[in-house]
Amino acid sequence: SAKSSKKISASSVTSIIDGLKRLYIQKLKPLEVAYRFNDFVSPLLTNSDFDAKPMVMLLGQYSTGKTTFIKHMLQSSYPGAHIGPEPTTDRFVVVMSGPDERSIPGNTVAVQADMPFGGLTNFGSAFLSKFECSTMPHPLLEHITFVDSPGVLSGEKQRLERSYDFTGVTSWFAAKSDLILLLFDPHKLDISDEFKRVITSLKGHDDKIRVVLNKADQVDTQQLMRIYGALMWSLGKVLNIPEVTRVYIGSFNDQPVNNVVNGVLGNELFEREQEDLLTDLKDIPKKACDRKINEFVKRARAAKIHAYIISHLKKQMPAMMGKAKAQQKLIDNLEGEFAKVQKEFHLPAGDFPNVEHFKDVLSGYNIDKFEKLKPKSIQAVDDMLAHDIPNLLKTFRNPYG
Amino acid sequence: SAKSSKKISASSVTSIIDGLKRLYIQKLKPLEVAYRFNDFVSPLLTNSDFDAKPMVMLLGQYSTGKTTFIKHMLQSSYPGAHIGPEPTTDRFVVVMSGPDERSIPGNTVAVQADMPFGGLTNFGSAFLSKFECSTMPHPLLEHITFVDSPGVLSGEKQRLERSYDFTGVTSWFAAKSDLILLLFDPHKLDISDEFKRVITSLKGHDDKIRVVLNKADQVDTQQLMRIYGALMWSLGKVLNIPEVTRVYIGSFNDQPVNNVVNGVLGNELFEREQEDLLTDLKDIPKKACDRKINEFVKRARAAKIHAYIISHLKKQMPAMMGKAKAQQKLIDNLEGEFAKVQKEFHLPAGDFPNVEHFKDVLSGYNIDKFEKLKPKSIQAVDDMLAHDIPNLLKTFRNPYG
Ligand SMILES: Nc1ncnc2c1ncn2[C@@H]1O[C@H](COP(=O)(O)OP(=O)(O)OP(=O)(O)O)[C@@H](O)[C@H]1O
Ligand SMILES: Nc1ncnc2c1ncn2[C@@H]1O[C@H](COP(=O)(O)OP(=O)(O)OP(=O)(O)O)[C@@H](O)[C@H]1O
Ligand SMILES: [Mg+2]
Ligand SMILES: [Mg+2]
Repeated sequence: SAKSSKKISASSVTSIIDGLKRLYIQKLKPLEVAYRFNDFVSPLLTNSDFDAKPMVMLLGQYSTGKTTFIKHMLQSSYPGAHIGPEPTTDRFVVVMSGPDERSIPGNTVAVQADMPFGGLTNFGSAFLSKFECSTMPHPLLEHITFVDSPGVLSGEKQRLERSYDFTGVTSWFAAKSDLILLLFDPHKLDISDEFKRVITSLKGHDDKIRVVLNKADQVDTQQLMRIYGALMWSLGKVLNIPEVTRVYIGSFNDQPVNNVVNGVLGNELFEREQEDLLTDLKDIPKKACDRKINEFVKRARAAKIHAYIISHLKKQMPAMMGKAKAQQKLIDNLEGEFAKVQKEFHLPAGDFPNVEHFKDVLSGYNIDKFEKLKPKSIQAVDDMLAHDIPNLLKTFRNPYG
Repeated sequence: SAKSSKKISASSVTSIIDGLKRLYIQKLKPLEVAYRFNDFVSPLLTNSDFDAKPMVMLLGQYSTGKTTFIKHMLQSSYPGAHIGPEPTTDRFVVVMSGPDERSIPGNTVAVQADMPFGGLTNFGSAFLSKFECSTMPHPLLEHITFVDSPGVLSGEKQRLERSYDFTGVTSWFAAKSDLILLLFDPHKLDISDEFKRVITSLKGHDDKIRVVLNKADQVDTQQLMRIYGALMWSLGKVLNIPEVTRVYIGSFNDQPVNNVVNGVLGNELFEREQEDLLTDLKDIPKKACDRKINEFVKRARAAKIHAYIISHLKKQMPAMMGKAKAQQKLIDNLEGEFAKVQKEFHLPAGDFPNVEHFKDVLSGYNIDKFEKLKPKSIQAVDDMLAHDIPNLLKTFRNPYG
């Protein structure tokens, strides 16, 4: 079928990712380094950024079954997992593949160069003490990393202030994730204020969101319909996107479905939904690969624009005197300079960086010390975009394409 | 149970309505007539306004089964009913009780004093030619009047302009209705622009709205869940109220439920939903009675305020000379005069009529010709609100209350 002919094997994924890694080091990184792209826009990529497994983040009120869901997928508990009726998971836990079963504290995880979690240090040590990484050898974890999270609070409990920027963290993980599962259960439908803020923090990643209506076998069919309807009603408003988010209805744990209240059909429905969700999960590695290529291309374009801007500024500097004054003038008129660059190189205005942030970083530099534009380094990136990446995809993705 | 002790018999309803009719003529109508409440705010009530049966309006895209639904409820077709896969019902049809089966054209219906449809003449003869009344003797119609409607248009069809103010008409009927059923079917989920405008026209009557997801046996359970979810998702946004509107899922026609695709459980679910909807319909006469009392009380308060305003204006008029100038000054400063009345009689500002509309009507009158305030006529209304109505309810509604 058309769908299966587009399938891409795990080894192709590895080959594509390896190819990008190589291209980055040979063609893009030199341009980034030359114009300090890392200080202005985004840290240099490390191997861990390329090698990171696709991530699935679970979010939801306490006790909706997030930890149980992961346990169910792994058919085994992860190191340090706690499951129980009261709020149990009190931290963000990255569950990933590793040679042995261990739990690594957040502070250690964040400084490990071979793990893509350095960015989390920005959330401070109050957060890092509520963050850990559980590793274990597991075939599923070869392909997917799970992110368990502490239950979103509601009602009175919301008053207990978090000691760190909770939605900042969910937003950070959302950007790195390939799938975000929002869990609800029939008795925990309400979308609290904290939950609303969390959902808002996922903005821009709506396409990654799926909803799980868990423990669906705990109510009868008519109740389930009411509950499901109410959930869609409020989700539609909170997510505020026209496309309906996919909801999986079922019971994601190791117990057999309770078909006393739901009858045979409940059983059937839940099984089909569970299958669909598994299919969706299996599809992640391919999707993650697409996302990585996409982000890599976007990054290359941004690095080019950055190089154009910096080298343009450099060119405006006087040869000998009045450098400080000239630099200040350029910074003051940065918006105008951006416009000149945009015009000269026919670039889309929307791709330009935020002026204020750029000014801030620029003030710490001596513009005159930057390199002139080297057409060869731009050419390398253009080559990569026009030839190397398409070839890479052609070779590994679609042998007949 | 608490619920059944609140039940109110059909004969009590009749007695309460008869009581209100009597009170209106004796105590409220004289005040309304004295100060021309009918010209400023709302036509005088006629017997037909009191006697009108509770109304259930059906709205929805073409072919969603509105006419079939009415046929199913009556277990028989109504005179002039058309059922078919293409847009069939091309007019608004009031289906009500009558001694024999006949179809009365809209122009005739609108001028009949014993029918509460006089207000519809405002929509012009283009509308009246698309309006009719079907009467037939039927036990259910003793308690409920149905309003069938032409299918709401979608897609290309919306371009065919209606020859009358469609949403004006739905809004008019919504105000008179006790229940508004929005019908959808699994293949006609989309809420077109015209449908959105129709739903917007129901504003203020959201509590009367129920949704029917009809023909639910035409898709399998998993599809039904998707469809139902998508419906709730978009309804939540369009209705824009926090309370979830009740949706009845089922197949409302005379055919047995198709349980090939849905299995036994579909059957069970649809039956329970059908029962719930019937219960809701049976509850209408009591609810309609509550609504009538409620609207009657609101009207009495409005009539008092109206009397205060007019008699206040009258009082400001000079005894002999400069009457025209004084009247103009009062009209120009009407907002200020409203404020004075509000303060003098301690009235809620929100209960005052729209200033501009009031000015318009007032310009056609000679303020000086109005009566002075007669404390006795206000007293009559106050008595009615404080004693007569509560007594009426006490006597007929809750014999033990
Ligand atoms: N599908 C299910 N059906 C019935 N019970 C379940 C299901 N999934 C989880 N539970 C039960 O619900 C309770 C909460 O489960 P769990 O600890 O996995 O939730 P959680 O979302 O991780 O909560 P927290 O946010 O507090 O970490 C436990 O008692 C668990 O056994
Ligand atoms: N519950 C049902 N299950 C299956 N088919 C149905 C059901 N109800 C109605 N139908 C069929 O759908 C078609 C449209 O029905 P009907 O004419 O009652 O719809 P309508 O909403 O009144 O349409 P219009 O807006 O054009 O008047 C008919 O062919 C009818 O037999
Ligand atoms: Mg947990
Ligand atoms: Mg019809």
